[in-house]
Amino acid sequence: MVFTPAVDRLIQAFRCLPGVGPRSAQRMVFHLLERDREGGAELARALGALDSVGHCKRCRLFTEAELCAICADQRRDAKLICIVESPADVLAVESAASYGGRYFVLMGKLSPLDGIGPDELGLDALDAILAEGSAEELILATSATVEGEATAHYLAGLAQRHGVTVSRIAQGVPRGGELEFIDGGTLGQAIADRKRV
Amino acid sequence: MVFTPAVDRLIQAFRCLPGVGPRSAQRMVFHLLERDREGGAELARALGALDSVGHCKRCRLFTEAELCAICADQRRDAKLICIVESPADVLAVESAASYGGRYFVLMGKLSPLDGIGPDELGLDALDAILAEGSAEELILATSATVEGEATAHYLAGLAQRHGVTVSRIAQGVPRGGELEFIDGGTLGQAIADRKRV
Repeated sequence: MVFTPAVDRLIQAFRCLPGVGPRSAQRMVFHLLERDREGGAELARALGALDSVGHCKRCRLFTEAELCAICADQRRDAKLICIVESPADVLAVESAASYGGRYFVLMGKLSPLDGIGPDELGLDALDAILAEGSAEELILATSATVEGEATAHYLAGLAQRHGVTVSRIAQGVPRGGELEFIDGGTLGQAIADRKRV
Repeated sequence: MVFTPAVDRLIQAFRCLPGVGPRSAQRMVFHLLERDREGGAELARALGALDSVGHCKRCRLFTEAELCAICADQRRDAKLICIVESPADVLAVESAASYGGRYFVLMGKLSPLDGIGPDELGLDALDAILAEGSAEELILATSATVEGEATAHYLAGLAQRHGVTVSRIAQGVPRGGELEFIDGGTLGQAIADRKRV
């Protein structure tokens, strides 16, 4: 037992963070104690609001308000809905593309073996949004994995029942990728989906 | 603006941790929100005790009590004092060696250019401990860097004034090190400090 209880508890508490092992937890605690007590106090205050953060009632993104910042923004195009698997994916699209529509966050993907079906992904909420009639195109931006494709396939059926246009983000060689190092599956897809120039 | 204020503030607050950039901060916040709200609440509670954590009045290790767990432990040998630069070094010695003495944590090293002199390292406190007369040997475990060596040199003088034995941890080839890849300075030192077998 090297530390007294409060210090030990602090080190243990940091272990709940992803990618933080015993040594990083220690380093974080020592850093806060030695150099940034104000930062630690602010972190404690910010964490106090954790319980007030829920999901946007429209798109399921994290927010402490009823609607997230994107759904509340009147300038965003309600005709376009981009479906993603996670909040991190929303950020990825926001930082990469000049996308001006809204999102719907599945908070997962269809995975029957893990007991994740349409209900767990809040597809009834998506169904309700589509029934409203303001959406004209659904952009399926789920991962290019087996589950992601299955989820996209299911969503395409849902959209078609509402008479909404569906599109899937393009698959192919990533920008800057050298053909020599691209796997066969990707390259085959890229050739099959070739675009006239 | 992708997030509402509470979520944004939470992400910013995690940025104060060492080695945590914007993406890791996001990942940590999403992890807590999606999967470990209890962990986040516990982290907030543990951080609440941050202000109560100060330094051990004897060895300057972090503790919320008057004495740290090591100084309070009656089984530790008061005749041995190991001088280290930081609390992380205490942990390193504790986990590596079966050292049964006490410590003194400098919380830095002599560095005149940065304005760190004997006063900043709490050497008056060390002086007081040596004046008590219970310490018989000072083990200098500062880094093998220029500042670490200078600090060790200064401390050796201090100990000698009190008539206390001083030792410096051995320098040489690290265990498992292949000679081919050891730098010349280390190898030269290892040869100069060779030990009879």
